[in-house]
Amino acid sequence: MVSIIKSRLPHPLDPLSTDEIAIAIAAVRKHHGECFFNVVSLHEPRKAEMLKWLESAHSPASESLRPARVANVVVIIQGGKVYDGLVDIKSGIIIKLELMEGVQPILTMEDLQIVEHICRTDPKVIEQCEISGIPKSDMQKVYCDPWTIGYDERYGNNVRLQQALMYYRPDVDTCQYQYPLDFCPIYDANKRAIIDIDVPKIRRPLSKAVPIDYTPKAVAMAGGYRTDLKPINITQPKGVSFKMDGRELEWQNWKFHIGFNYREGIVLNNITYNDKGNRRPIFYRLSLAEMVVPYGNPEHPHQRKHAFDLGEYGAGYMTNSLSLGCDCKGSIYYLDADFPTRDGSIRTIKNAICIHEEDAGILFKHTDFRDDSVIVTRARKLIIQQIFTAANYEYSCQWIFHQDGTIQPEIKLTGILNTYAMNVDEDAGPWGTQVYPGVNAHNHQHLFCLRIDPMIDGHNNTVNMVDTVPSEAPVGSEDNFYGNAFYAKKTKLDTTGKAMTDYNGATSRTWEIVNESKLHPYSKKPVSYKLVSREVPGLLPQKDSLVWKRAGFARHAVHVTKYSDDQLWPAGCHVPQTSGEPSMGIPQWIGDGTESVVDTDIVFWHTFGVTHIPAPEDFPIMPVEPITLLLRPRNFFSNNPAMDVMPSYCSTPSQVAGKQDGILNTTDKMSTLAFSNGTGSSSGCCKP
Amino acid sequence: MVSIIKSRLPHPLDPLSTDEIAIAIAAVRKHHGECFFNVVSLHEPRKAEMLKWLESAHSPASESLRPARVANVVVIIQGGKVYDGLVDIKSGIIIKLELMEGVQPILTMEDLQIVEHICRTDPKVIEQCEISGIPKSDMQKVYCDPWTIGYDERYGNNVRLQQALMYYRPDVDTCQYQYPLDFCPIYDANKRAIIDIDVPKIRRPLSKAVPIDYTPKAVAMAGGYRTDLKPINITQPKGVSFKMDGRELEWQNWKFHIGFNYREGIVLNNITYNDKGNRRPIFYRLSLAEMVVPYGNPEHPHQRKHAFDLGEYGAGYMTNSLSLGCDCKGSIYYLDADFPTRDGSIRTIKNAICIHEEDAGILFKHTDFRDDSVIVTRARKLIIQQIFTAANYEYSCQWIFHQDGTIQPEIKLTGILNTYAMNVDEDAGPWGTQVYPGVNAHNHQHLFCLRIDPMIDGHNNTVNMVDTVPSEAPVGSEDNFYGNAFYAKKTKLDTTGKAMTDYNGATSRTWEIVNESKLHPYSKKPVSYKLVSREVPGLLPQKDSLVWKRAGFARHAVHVTKYSDDQLWPAGCHVPQTSGEPSMGIPQWIGDGTESVVDTDIVFWHTFGVTHIPAPEDFPIMPVEPITLLLRPRNFFSNNPAMDVMPSYCSTPSQVAGKQDGILNTTDKMSTLAFSNGTGSSSGCCKP
Repeated sequence: MVSIIKSRLPHPLDPLSTDEIAIAIAAVRKHHGECFFNVVSLHEPRKAEMLKWLESAHSPASESLRPARVANVVVIIQGGKVYDGLVDIKSGIIIKLELMEGVQPILTMEDLQIVEHICRTDPKVIEQCEISGIPKSDMQKVYCDPWTIGYDERYGNNVRLQQALMYYRPDVDTCQYQYPLDFCPIYDANKRAIIDIDVPKIRRPLSKAVPIDYTPKAVAMAGGYRTDLKPINITQPKGVSFKMDGRELEWQNWKFHIGFNYREGIVLNNITYNDKGNRRPIFYRLSLAEMVVPYGNPEHPHQRKHAFDLGEYGAGYMTNSLSLGCDCKGSIYYLDADFPTRDGSIRTIKNAICIHEEDAGILFKHTDFRDDSVIVTRARKLIIQQIFTAANYEYSCQWIFHQDGTIQPEIKLTGILNTYAMNVDEDAGPWGTQVYPGVNAHNHQHLFCLRIDPMIDGHNNTVNMVDTVPSEAPVGSEDNFYGNAFYAKKTKLDTTGKAMTDYNGATSRTWEIVNESKLHPYSKKPVSYKLVSREVPGLLPQKDSLVWKRAGFARHAVHVTKYSDDQLWPAGCHVPQTSGEPSMGIPQWIGDGTESVVDTDIVFWHTFGVTHIPAPEDFPIMPVEPITLLLRPRNFFSNNPAMDVMPSYCSTPSQVAGKQDGILNTTDKMSTLAFSNGTGSSSGCCKP
Repeated sequence: MVSIIKSRLPHPLDPLSTDEIAIAIAAVRKHHGECFFNVVSLHEPRKAEMLKWLESAHSPASESLRPARVANVVVIIQGGKVYDGLVDIKSGIIIKLELMEGVQPILTMEDLQIVEHICRTDPKVIEQCEISGIPKSDMQKVYCDPWTIGYDERYGNNVRLQQALMYYRPDVDTCQYQYPLDFCPIYDANKRAIIDIDVPKIRRPLSKAVPIDYTPKAVAMAGGYRTDLKPINITQPKGVSFKMDGRELEWQNWKFHIGFNYREGIVLNNITYNDKGNRRPIFYRLSLAEMVVPYGNPEHPHQRKHAFDLGEYGAGYMTNSLSLGCDCKGSIYYLDADFPTRDGSIRTIKNAICIHEEDAGILFKHTDFRDDSVIVTRARKLIIQQIFTAANYEYSCQWIFHQDGTIQPEIKLTGILNTYAMNVDEDAGPWGTQVYPGVNAHNHQHLFCLRIDPMIDGHNNTVNMVDTVPSEAPVGSEDNFYGNAFYAKKTKLDTTGKAMTDYNGATSRTWEIVNESKLHPYSKKPVSYKLVSREVPGLLPQKDSLVWKRAGFARHAVHVTKYSDDQLWPAGCHVPQTSGEPSMGIPQWIGDGTESVVDTDIVFWHTFGVTHIPAPEDFPIMPVEPITLLLRPRNFFSNNPAMDVMPSYCSTPSQVAGKQDGILNTTDKMSTLAFSNGTGSSSGCCKP
């Protein structure tokens, strides 16, 4: 057994170290011999146990209460049998390891890499390539993006399958998404072979369009790069304003632990805010827990394109190794991620998480119009980021912390559209857009599910749906004579059934997570954090459709469930090849919808995203499209909690009147006028 | 007459220079003697005339086609008579100057300043102050925020009135909004006297709460400033990437003219994009044209609180003088604003507009999962900003230009809540929130109206409403077997009546402004710019309410009208004391709604904003709340128009394989690791 040599014990929520992963692998090997390692990841401490330890921290009892380190292990044994279990790290003992029937665990990058090679040498694939107009001798120019098959009723879920979305690259450096092929091989992971090929009725031979690319060579040929962009330098000569203790971060009254796993990527735990010396609990755990990307073309087999990128591939497994001065600027702190390889060794993704601050414009400002006495205070934000690549698309996932108590999850979409072949005389119809000759980019949605485990001043919380509506009293009535009355109508979501709620843009609908037993001293309203989320399309695949059945979490903008340790992932634990009958995850947990979620330990699930009708501007590489939402303190702090941020400038009326010295002026001295006085513009000139 | 001495002629859309303002003033004085100058502002050239000149630019004929400089002048003559007219600048001749009946023009800062002084010496106000608990000797501690009366049916609109929202400051440096008084004097501008006082049935004496403030002294007493925020320096050692020619700006293929007037503040004109050598027209004119802030408390006289900040006070007149390194950082270019004073001299607001660039994170990124070949390109944005103070609130209005052809109008709300008195034992009820002891902040909305005058590849445009919806074919049907089909349903808004449309969050509703006569070569869809706007609450004051009648523009998210030179301001030209009977502005222009707005010169009006249910976190000064929207090119460019922005890093598959040199690496060299290697964290360490 590999020994753990560490200067300190890991935090109970730290990801497994390379040594710990090795221990778990060794334990499984000892009992089961050779197998493919699919998952070796921290089995998070049970919440009750974890809270006891957190509450005891720094007390003499704390070490005895420290939760054990346990690994969740998923392995595949030759022949495709799947085992899922737990290994105690300290003892190296397998706690359990169960054979799973009718279940396919997550696809790893190695699972995916293998398919392309097999496609290139498969005679049936070669035959289809020839039909498409690609000679046998060009098979090294044929590529595939392997996706799990999702679900195909012809095969069920006992065989581990992938569908190979096929492409061609005339040159190794050409972006393949402009040369999609029209057929779709199906790969059997156990047989390591192509077992079938879906061939459409209408054939669409390889496009003959000239390539369009974003490589330096291609840009040079198209006229070269813009030369008029001058540098903006961002420097932090005195260092950063945050502190790290292991993976615990402190910044501007915030404190939290940064976890990371193969599935969700970044997980933030035990988020608290130091409110004038009182460290108040806000969220026990925050993560992006699932997503689904349904495509809207009904032609077979495109219904299978509805990737659950987290449940089927893993935001951790697919995460990028980030680069200084490239993915972000300033002073950056990085955290790595360690995962098992298929054969039981370790792969490390360096710089899997980046942490940095940014200037965030004005935090607040007010001028008294009487005398121009003024306060201007600039804001700072802290960003915890990862970027993952899901075949064609990239997702930048940012957790942004603000000084005023707001947490802003933000997702930036970029990368390349998933594309399909179309003929020169074909109409992409309502289901897609010809973004380039011969390239059909299908309509799709990106629906993300945020898992919010709140502890708003304690673990017993409740959710209200809030709609701003006119008064019920009509114009001219005594209660509303001028007709201007309106208010925030609150609907308590008291059961899991009632909590299944949708978005309403017209009422600016929000949801507030409240602690009913703690009222604000002034407003007399319960302390709360409010979710402000404005990109909330409905799930467009219809009720009882394949996607609707498999992605139960996406049926509503909000679900609320009672906390349960094992309910982490809203489309279920092992997502590939689920049939949706029954729907896994949230619909199972909600059941008949009668469970009370009032004043108890709850989990708040929020599905949001965008519906993407592609346009040529998105091709061949898509400018970032951000989706942002806010978790805002409302009736939580006694007043603006960021008033103690040093202003850039503050003058009071008595100072303006000259009756008092000491105008506060910490204005940034590095800023300059754009042009020297009197130049750069013939009318108007720069003022100091 | 003052002579114009200039090195060059002004652009026809440049604001009037100080000399030009002086010419107009002199002309009016010559014919009318002494009067109060309310407006002296550029009367913009008629569009037809302007287009002829633009098309002729740089040709020999261009000078003969140059539109004349004309001033719009509004003056008030002793006794309150209002004249509105035009003065030709070159000749100094009054083109027209008409007596206006039943109309009150905009309130200037000087109109407002006067009221506080008169309140302090008015016996009836002094009496009410005494009832509130303020001794006669403390009248210098009594303040008022004067607002136009809006509309009060008791007085109509022949007398120029203001309502004085009353406050008390125990100390001159105390924020007054925590000590509101419960009565409301009404000021007659012609009499220069308080003519009435609205006194509520329930009296609310002066609050005895201890003050809460954001001044350095107050923060020091509350524990002092945060000391752990280290500087972030933003520098542009090689200068900015934009060029100014007068008030015309060029940056990253964009070119446009920056105007400014007393009413709308920033006006952007003739916005074009250089698409590979072809300068394509996009918007003829963009501005924030009006706003209304209705408050939701039905108690008299709070229905009068529904400020039209632009039409009643002016975003230009109220604009802040901005400061380097304070309101924004980096290298900044400023433009001043010149206005007449009441007595006919000039006041200049220095640095009324700031222009600067910011790093904007990742523009696009893609990694090939096969070999980690990658492109990362950073984005830059250009911001044209003004900030105006409307008594208690501040609004930062930003026009943000992106490299990918997107224009992003963004408004940031900050400043201080408008507040009203409440008794210790009183319940703020559903209409407001007690944000501090004795302080009731009423529910309100901020509804902004954007005026978009498009010229998408030409002046004849059409608007489609776009909803993303499921296919009509049911699950299991031949056309939609798996139920996944969905598409963008387009509704052509072919008449002004049909174009009155509301927001629908569930369908991710957008509106696209298209040129039907120009189809994209690949998508075959008409070239367009799409409005993506997600903060679009309905107008909460009811149908036929006072606000609904006065703010006709706010009844729908979108209106489309046929272009007319004089239809600039959607609540009408002279907004103070309009009764709403009939509704001025957009409802007038739309009439019976039968006018065609297909393939013609149109104006697109968009009302958006937020409904604000106050919370104690907003007090005593409100952290910025941003509202953002996008005007995005869709089917406009042949492909991603920003591919020629230099990447930070780009490696191709052949370079990764070592078969080709020349990996592009322009990574920012100023960025650093947050902590030195091996320090700052005991687990994990920084990776280079």
